[in-house]
Amino acid sequence: MANFKGHALPGSFFLLFGLWWSVKYPLQYLSQKVTKKSHKIYCFQRVDAIEGGIKIIFALIGMLAEQFVPDGPHLYLYSGENRDWVKLMNWQHTTMYLFYGLSGVVDVFTYVSQAVPQGLDRLMLSVAVFVEGCLFYYHVLHRPMLDQHIHSLLLIAVFSGACSVMLEVFLRDNIVLEMFRAGVTIVQGTWFWQIGVVLFQPWGGPMWDENDHSNIMFLTMCFFWHWAAAVAILAINYTLAYCCVQRCGRGSGEPYIGLGVRQQKCDTGSRAAFLNGSDEE
Amino acid sequence: MANFKGHALPGSFFLLFGLWWSVKYPLQYLSQKVTKKSHKIYCFQRVDAIEGGIKIIFALIGMLAEQFVPDGPHLYLYSGENRDWVKLMNWQHTTMYLFYGLSGVVDVFTYVSQAVPQGLDRLMLSVAVFVEGCLFYYHVLHRPMLDQHIHSLLLIAVFSGACSVMLEVFLRDNIVLEMFRAGVTIVQGTWFWQIGVVLFQPWGGPMWDENDHSNIMFLTMCFFWHWAAAVAILAINYTLAYCCVQRCGRGSGEPYIGLGVRQQKCDTGSRAAFLNGSDEE
Amino acid sequence: MANFKGHALPGSFFLLFGLWWSVKYPLQYLSQKVTKKSHKIYCFQRVDAIEGGIKIIFALIGMLAEQFVPDGPHLYLYSGENRDWVKLMNWQHTTMYLFYGLSGVVDVFTYVSQAVPQGLDRLMLSVAVFVEGCLFYYHVLHRPMLDQHIHSLLLIAVFSGACSVMLEVFLRDNIVLEMFRAGVTIVQGTWFWQIGVVLFQPWGGPMWDENDHSNIMFLTMCFFWHWAAAVAILAINYTLAYCCVQRCGRGSGEPYIGLGVRQQKCDTGSRAAFLNGSDEE
Amino acid sequence: MANFKGHALPGSFFLLFGLWWSVKYPLQYLSQKVTKKSHKIYCFQRVDAIEGGIKIIFALIGMLAEQFVPDGPHLYLYSGENRDWVKLMNWQHTTMYLFYGLSGVVDVFTYVSQAVPQGLDRLMLSVAVFVEGCLFYYHVLHRPMLDQHIHSLLLIAVFSGACSVMLEVFLRDNIVLEMFRAGVTIVQGTWFWQIGVVLFQPWGGPMWDENDHSNIMFLTMCFFWHWAAAVAILAINYTLAYCCVQRCGRGSGEPYIGLGVRQQKCDTGSRAAFLNGSDEE
Repeated sequence: MANFKGHALPGSFFLLFGLWWSVKYPLQYLSQKVTKKSHKIYCFQRVDAIEGGIKIIFALIGMLAEQFVPDGPHLYLYSGENRDWVKLMNWQHTTMYLFYGLSGVVDVFTYVSQAVPQGLDRLMLSVAVFVEGCLFYYHVLHRPMLDQHIHSLLLIAVFSGACSVMLEVFLRDNIVLEMFRAGVTIVQGTWFWQIGVVLFQPWGGPMWDENDHSNIMFLTMCFFWHWAAAVAILAINYTLAYCCVQRCGRGSGEPYIGLGVRQQKCDTGSRAAFLNGSDEE
Repeated sequence: MANFKGHALPGSFFLLFGLWWSVKYPLQYLSQKVTKKSHKIYCFQRVDAIEGGIKIIFALIGMLAEQFVPDGPHLYLYSGENRDWVKLMNWQHTTMYLFYGLSGVVDVFTYVSQAVPQGLDRLMLSVAVFVEGCLFYYHVLHRPMLDQHIHSLLLIAVFSGACSVMLEVFLRDNIVLEMFRAGVTIVQGTWFWQIGVVLFQPWGGPMWDENDHSNIMFLTMCFFWHWAAAVAILAINYTLAYCCVQRCGRGSGEPYIGLGVRQQKCDTGSRAAFLNGSDEE
Repeated sequence: MANFKGHALPGSFFLLFGLWWSVKYPLQYLSQKVTKKSHKIYCFQRVDAIEGGIKIIFALIGMLAEQFVPDGPHLYLYSGENRDWVKLMNWQHTTMYLFYGLSGVVDVFTYVSQAVPQGLDRLMLSVAVFVEGCLFYYHVLHRPMLDQHIHSLLLIAVFSGACSVMLEVFLRDNIVLEMFRAGVTIVQGTWFWQIGVVLFQPWGGPMWDENDHSNIMFLTMCFFWHWAAAVAILAINYTLAYCCVQRCGRGSGEPYIGLGVRQQKCDTGSRAAFLNGSDEE
Repeated sequence: MANFKGHALPGSFFLLFGLWWSVKYPLQYLSQKVTKKSHKIYCFQRVDAIEGGIKIIFALIGMLAEQFVPDGPHLYLYSGENRDWVKLMNWQHTTMYLFYGLSGVVDVFTYVSQAVPQGLDRLMLSVAVFVEGCLFYYHVLHRPMLDQHIHSLLLIAVFSGACSVMLEVFLRDNIVLEMFRAGVTIVQGTWFWQIGVVLFQPWGGPMWDENDHSNIMFLTMCFFWHWAAAVAILAINYTLAYCCVQRCGRGSGEPYIGLGVRQQKCDTGSRAAFLNGSDEE
């Protein structure tokens, strides 16, 4: 939907997922240091499955919205009389949602059956993000300069996200990659809102001059302010997760810090062993 | 051959290989969990050799077809009288087939001799795909917009395939990469057919307007529908392979699921050990 | 600040850090071969924290300079009366400094708390460098040819630096990557000075002809001479570090060379073991 | 030197190195399976040092040739009277040779001193190749179409070579990467000759029409024929190395094949262990 709602809807979806990930992954990472893993892991796997379900629901909402808004195609792809395609913009957005839906389905199957190979869920997510990026790339080609630029900035977040998720196929449960994914997703969400606000003035106000170069310079900078904000959010949520886990740790009677330190140590060792081949050993 | 047959032929080759891989690799992966490896691996190696042979045959068919169709160059590269090159299009396609043939040869040698280093077959395949991509990139440069766009979409599948095969040089027998390769190959096959249908109307019908932007928007979207279809095919074939392996597993009297679970567990452990360096250990 | 000072300031920051890293990392690498690690590592961690602090200070200096120079925006972003943005150039530079400041903050936290996952500091640094690159890319788009070219050469150093730091997230304490980072940072520093000299003639002299192609050819070559100089500096500093460590080694009474050799040997073995999978084992 | 000699000289250097590597690395790889390593490795390290020396000599020859040919700059960079740069083309070529010389120096030091970290030689070589690529990229920008295209094809070989050498920093002694490097280097050498022949007709003959698109199509294809030829050369040299090593193996009285098989097996195991994390273990 080429209007404010059409950008606010996906923006909210991405924002929700980004914020949720920025809480979940720190919790998972920190709690694995304190308590028994086996049980933790299992319950976190269940969480992944629920996540998949929510993805599917969001994707369905998005697809239905794109199809059945008043000015939508209502599932008509080609109109016979005037021999032309119907509302391809909406159809392209539907396709984007479709792939996120597929990614959700794979998440659920990964939880249900032991036979699904690990990493397939990450691969499917990465493909979904990549598809979103490609479709955006092609469908902003013939737009006014400002419109094109503001979307091309989005592509930075989209493609760097796709790459980092692709890496997770091989470096699973790497907290750094997971935090990066969370951050990029938050940026994508907030930037969708920004696009909607800039292009469609939901609360009135003057149109932006589409050909004023200084507007483009401002938006470039603004995009990275969103990024800085996302970093701040990640830091806050990580700290909250840390405090909460530490309290539980105390609750279960074992001092966390000490454990943390030891953990950290051997953790360092192991990481060095697997990746560096440096002389540390 | 710049006609429907010239696209249907390679399309069928890619489709056959893609479908075959989407059955073979899940079987290989799942069966390695159930029965003794040593023997399995050996027979799968033989399958690789046969694959190589088929590659060679397909490549030969393709090269002969490109050379000896009525309007082909018949092995003439340069015509003296009008001092010009002869049918360079066909010669370029011949070159593409040539590299797939070389890749087949390397596959066979890898099976025949123990001295051929592992991964060389993957490298050669990756180079072949990459060469196909480069040649396509250069020889659609000066075409009408629609023609250029529909081929550039093909390049997405070609180059992402080349990259994933390149990764297999270092991450051999990684089921996720193998599934991805199968998927990309299926997409390439079906998309070759799509190109043929769009540009040459084998079954009549009106020409597509080469400069209508909405046609280009539709084809962009359509390309990713092919991708979604490929994902569905992979899912179905994987499930079939799973059922069939499970039946055999039962046949040989050991309950599969239990084994699957255990397998999965240690598998997770090992993968974590090799790649994550996370705290899971 | 689009003047000589505006390029000399960041240039000096990068130069200082590059030179410091070209001394620190060789010392760290070589000393780990000779003396007990545990203690060494700890004191080097403290050094990282101090580095972070200096980063923060430099970033603050840069941001204040960009904001409060006489022709700066003095924190005004949008001027109501002439309805336009104020000094966006300075604001963009401020944003660049901001991200380096954030990277410094993460460095400090990594030292303070054991709970911050390893590699996050490298990720943040990589993001900071990447952001600098993106902002440069966009804000030289509409400049004269020479200006654009001399900045685009800078981007080579910036983006290759961002990639290598990104790799350090996964290959931490890899001396080769660290030396590369030091080299790229030195090049960036000297090149900033070069840009200032070429575009603003601090010491008078004739303007460079902005559209003379041979000027552009010379600067392209000159950029790589800076690179060669950086390599020479790295070599010299590495040798100095080696001599100094060797003297300490002798001081503590164990012959270094012998140790070096043994170290090197097993080091080779281990690196081969973790990464090659070659037949060396 | 913008003439035939100026392309034949570097072409011959690359060709010599490519052919030498296509013999050396198979010998190294195969002999490590048969005889004791320790000694072999040592003598191969000495070979690396000699290689470095030859690199330095070649680089010096190249630099002197570029500087002191009759129409060369003779070390003059800027001429005062007509206030212009002198022969920048030759200076750029000198810069390319310079970096290959630096790479040779690092090779020698790596052999001389145990303190030079492993992988630094590969990094320096990768940088040298990358620098060559960048300089070529910039200095063919404003040429006729044919000239630009034939050089841009060279860039494919140059940059893929730079990437593979960069990988060798982390995956040292990986025979697949080494073979790829040898192949790419051979292609680069033969293609330099091709460029010289096409642009300067050393043996007379008509000029090539610089704007005939079919010439460009032919050269694109021709480039990949060079590549196919390089693959054939690699295959032949690998076979020769295999025969020669096998004879030695027999000479030293232990049957090679058997060993080869065993080697291969455990080799597979180990590689799987370090990289795949597949269920093979």
